[in-house]
Amino acid sequence: MSVTAAKGFTAAGIAAGIKESGHPDLALVVNDGPRRAAAGVFTSNRVKAAPVLWSEQVLKGGEVTAVVLNSGGANACTGPQGFQDTHATAEKAAEVLSGHSAGEIAVASTGLIGLRLPMDKLLPGIEQAAKELSEHGGEKAAIAIKTTDTVHKTAVAGGEGWTVGGMAKGAGMLAPGLATMLVVLTTDADVEAPALDTALRAATRTTFDRVDSDGCMSTNDTVLLLASGASGITPAQAEFDQAVQSVCADLARQLIGDAEGASKDIRIEVINAATEEDAVEVGRSIARNNLLKCAIHGEDPNWGRVLSAIGTTKAAFEPDLLNVAINDVWVCRNGSVGEDRDLVDMRYREVRITADLAAGGESAVIWANDLTAEYVHENSAYSS
Amino acid sequence: MSVTAAKGFTAAGIAAGIKESGHPDLALVVNDGPRRAAAGVFTSNRVKAAPVLWSEQVLKGGEVTAVVLNSGGANACTGPQGFQDTHATAEKAAEVLSGHSAGEIAVASTGLIGLRLPMDKLLPGIEQAAKELSEHGGEKAAIAIKTTDTVHKTAVAGGEGWTVGGMAKGAGMLAPGLATMLVVLTTDADVEAPALDTALRAATRTTFDRVDSDGCMSTNDTVLLLASGASGITPAQAEFDQAVQSVCADLARQLIGDAEGASKDIRIEVINAATEEDAVEVGRSIARNNLLKCAIHGEDPNWGRVLSAIGTTKAAFEPDLLNVAINDVWVCRNGSVGEDRDLVDMRYREVRITADLAAGGESAVIWANDLTAEYVHENSAYSS
Repeated sequence: MSVTAAKGFTAAGIAAGIKESGHPDLALVVNDGPRRAAAGVFTSNRVKAAPVLWSEQVLKGGEVTAVVLNSGGANACTGPQGFQDTHATAEKAAEVLSGHSAGEIAVASTGLIGLRLPMDKLLPGIEQAAKELSEHGGEKAAIAIKTTDTVHKTAVAGGEGWTVGGMAKGAGMLAPGLATMLVVLTTDADVEAPALDTALRAATRTTFDRVDSDGCMSTNDTVLLLASGASGITPAQAEFDQAVQSVCADLARQLIGDAEGASKDIRIEVINAATEEDAVEVGRSIARNNLLKCAIHGEDPNWGRVLSAIGTTKAAFEPDLLNVAINDVWVCRNGSVGEDRDLVDMRYREVRITADLAAGGESAVIWANDLTAEYVHENSAYSS
Repeated sequence: MSVTAAKGFTAAGIAAGIKESGHPDLALVVNDGPRRAAAGVFTSNRVKAAPVLWSEQVLKGGEVTAVVLNSGGANACTGPQGFQDTHATAEKAAEVLSGHSAGEIAVASTGLIGLRLPMDKLLPGIEQAAKELSEHGGEKAAIAIKTTDTVHKTAVAGGEGWTVGGMAKGAGMLAPGLATMLVVLTTDADVEAPALDTALRAATRTTFDRVDSDGCMSTNDTVLLLASGASGITPAQAEFDQAVQSVCADLARQLIGDAEGASKDIRIEVINAATEEDAVEVGRSIARNNLLKCAIHGEDPNWGRVLSAIGTTKAAFEPDLLNVAINDVWVCRNGSVGEDRDLVDMRYREVRITADLAAGGESAVIWANDLTAEYVHENSAYSS
């Protein structure tokens, strides 16, 4: 499972003392080759954390030997010193994994914004993690990147003789353009960097980019895909794309299922849109409507709030032709009252909203969470 | 005070039985002239309630004799029958105020979406309200339009011999392009419809349009300005504009101060923006960031979440030049750690966030609220 499911990878997860709690907070993932191809997708937030600025540069080379990930601090909004800290992290990893340069080491961080990382703990932690690298270290690595996650997240897929595996963290700030979500995917398929990039971008576009837990976009989102080529097999691109898509979709679903303070996972499907862009715009608008998110929390099939959210978009639709189903009961037909709302059973964690724009043949699915008092509690107290 | 502060207006507020609670739920405001000029601004939500569709048509004539307002039901997403109900409401008011046509009667509704209004209670209510019309009825009218408002809101301003007064309701769904916010302003200044329109649009643009309590835009927002001309005075346009602006700003501030479940009023000032549009875009992005709203609730000066929100906009700025103050302490300078966050005193209800984009000379102020467990509670339980 996780990042060591594919051949050619070792990983470790340790407690370096970055988190005051003493919980695991440092992960190291190493690609032992023979190939070291890589692709990455990063936050579209214009305020980017130091590790994002660093790793974006690393990925331009198309080769990544190792990834250092830490929880317990985002190293965002930390100025030139913060960037130096990331650089020193990569240098240290290059040193302990002798024979490689810092320019092949990606770095990812998650935690509070605006605080320097305790480098006196992080750098020795890299030495310790390197000593613990193992072909069975994937689970420990997945555990070490948790912040407010209640469980660690891993997934695996693949084809005949080759595998794609991965790990993810992210429980808050899940939003389009990714979120404080760190994801590392590994594969032993023999795939070059451009093909990895194609697969990763196609997969994130319809998975992580359509997860919108709370509308907030992080400064640190990072999704990496590393290929070792250790299987010696080069799958057809379509088959490879499908495996990457499958692992991303699995991880994205796990992220929504463990979002901070959530009690419901909301699957919003927009159908019969004029364009896919319209479908995504409407889905996001519904996903971000605080009043609707509260109603879902209260198990109240308040379809008026769905219509109100649709009405704020620029998508093609006529108000009098809109239909909305909640858990398959079409409570709104033709922009007005439809089936009896008392027929809607909302007792279960997953809630399905279907918005029919009656304007074309395109569709999209966006995942969101409800808004709860627990979300407020977790996020009012987080930094103190 | 309220809509009867200006000469030439009478008003009433009664309990017609629309609300199951038996609380006042129907208001009538009548312009006794001699002039009956009017201007209106409505929600920019594309899903518009029947009374909005009706009143938009009425306002095109530039004359309004009376406004019927009800709480206890929004008459939104109610189809052709809902529109008929609004039409019947205007017809009834025209009948009881003999000598006028339904085409001069504006209608405004607020409450739950997707339910028909109990016309068997509303229509007799109009008869009763007409009997209770009084030059001192402004307060009762302001009380009758409340939904989850804890207090009624009124304001007054004016010049030598003339007055602008008004009432407002709206405690949730306060957002740009207005919100379920109903506002009626009246003046005895002798001003024609085009000048009223100019004054009203200028005022709402920088007041109600910059109130963003929870990012949700209503289907029912309505702001009307009626002029009786009863003072016989025609103020200079600039002076009149200023009075309308003053009443709108006063009411907008009261709306934020009474937003559903809020414990903090957040004044977000964006300064040194390249354009006013940039300043507004950044202000709204900060205003809508759920993580930041939670942090403010927890009295946590989490400036990283401010930067994270700024980073999602298209405004002109360089991340390394951003400065952020919370309650006048510059906790972020040059995109990084600034003054000690422990210096920030957040005990009071009003919290001031200043975001310096260092990109120009324009600015804007947006008002928002924090996100609280009480907000979640009120909005999970509202329709049941």
